[in-house]
Amino acid sequence: MLSKSQISLIKSLQHKKFRREHQLFVVEGYKSVAEFITSPYSIQTLFYTPAIAAKLPKIPKKLNFQEITVAELEKITGLTTPQDALALVQVPDYTPVVLENIKQKFTLVLDGIQDPGNLGTIIRTADWFGIENIICSTDTVDAYNPKVVQATMGSLARVKVHYTTLTDLLTTLPLPIYGALLNGKNIYTTNFGEEGLIVMGNEGNGLRPDIEQLISEAITIPRVGNAESLNVGIATALFCSELNRKRYK
Amino acid sequence: MLSKSQISLIKSLQHKKFRREHQLFVVEGYKSVAEFITSPYSIQTLFYTPAIAAKLPKIPKKLNFQEITVAELEKITGLTTPQDALALVQVPDYTPVVLENIKQKFTLVLDGIQDPGNLGTIIRTADWFGIENIICSTDTVDAYNPKVVQATMGSLARVKVHYTTLTDLLTTLPLPIYGALLNGKNIYTTNFGEEGLIVMGNEGNGLRPDIEQLISEAITIPRVGNAESLNVGIATALFCSELNRKRYK
Repeated sequence: MLSKSQISLIKSLQHKKFRREHQLFVVEGYKSVAEFITSPYSIQTLFYTPAIAAKLPKIPKKLNFQEITVAELEKITGLTTPQDALALVQVPDYTPVVLENIKQKFTLVLDGIQDPGNLGTIIRTADWFGIENIICSTDTVDAYNPKVVQATMGSLARVKVHYTTLTDLLTTLPLPIYGALLNGKNIYTTNFGEEGLIVMGNEGNGLRPDIEQLISEAITIPRVGNAESLNVGIATALFCSELNRKRYK
Repeated sequence: MLSKSQISLIKSLQHKKFRREHQLFVVEGYKSVAEFITSPYSIQTLFYTPAIAAKLPKIPKKLNFQEITVAELEKITGLTTPQDALALVQVPDYTPVVLENIKQKFTLVLDGIQDPGNLGTIIRTADWFGIENIICSTDTVDAYNPKVVQATMGSLARVKVHYTTLTDLLTTLPLPIYGALLNGKNIYTTNFGEEGLIVMGNEGNGLRPDIEQLISEAITIPRVGNAESLNVGIATALFCSELNRKRYK
């Protein structure tokens, strides 16, 4: 049975303040939970309903399991339709960002992304295209926000999301810095080389001026029609795809 | 002043049943409303707050205007943070889909897309890439759903969204039918030619079998990493981008 203090702890993790205090976040749904189980993340407790008990023998034994009823799951879920499992997972510590880990590859850099769905989709897309690291400004939405976790569809278990002061980072890393900007070089004819940072701006305001001046190459996705802008998740995916497509020439 | 019947009508338009009954839908925010004003859509009434009264002289006079207070707007808005204007717009009738209007170009076909945010993003992306028509299965989420309208950021004023029975359509149109599927031809090395339909499947289940068998060419976005799938809005954008990029070779 769930204790009152467990319920209170789990519900508090909907809020960033308490995720930070406890260094824990919530993953819901067996499919997503399974991705974290097989990842380097540490799982503090896995709550599951009888419906999926049969799947548990396949899980390494070191996990702390607790069977709960559907009614109990409804008390702790952040979802409108609760699923079959809920895990408390430890927030990892990836700091600081080290050149060694991001050279000879491409890394996404996000400047002030606010929408949890957008960040979640970006993480999922990065995972599809084999991008291992995403570096976020400190005011980018928290990757362990339940809505972000849900939107990543398990990909958060594989893609490392770092938070840091972007101006410091961009002035120290000896890598090409590509920025998604209007009036830049055509993305379709750009040779991105073998490594670099791809910097994407905030949904409404784009890149901040202090970040924009650190960009070594402005890149534009050419517009054919009339939309004023592209969604940032879409724009990020188009960059990831362009980095990927040269493998198939 | 807003009458009770106006409030009741506008609030009812949050629901598909009443949008269908009244053949009206709601657009919120002056920026989006302005896109509909300059489009072929008919606007039944434009409600505005004093904050944007100064912008109105620029609008053609045939519109039915009504100034309301912020408190009144709060009664009729579907948004958490109400904006400065709300328009009642007539649902257009694009049926039937005629070959004449979609030949020599590319058209998106959506098979059972459920998420309003996904459909909205697809419409916005189509607009960016100059795609004029989107054809949806009858069970795809309604394009005039307020969440869809909001996510299109005004692009719904330009992209025509049709609803029809896809099996009938796909068996009659003499156009190449490309389908987003696993184990298909590599999207990066496919020559899409000058016209065709790009068929995208439902978020969870992909294309339905009866649709899948009508596909003339299965196309795949190659995966480098480990995500199980891409978001359908992202996948659609990658197709739009590939159709576009040949202009820049």
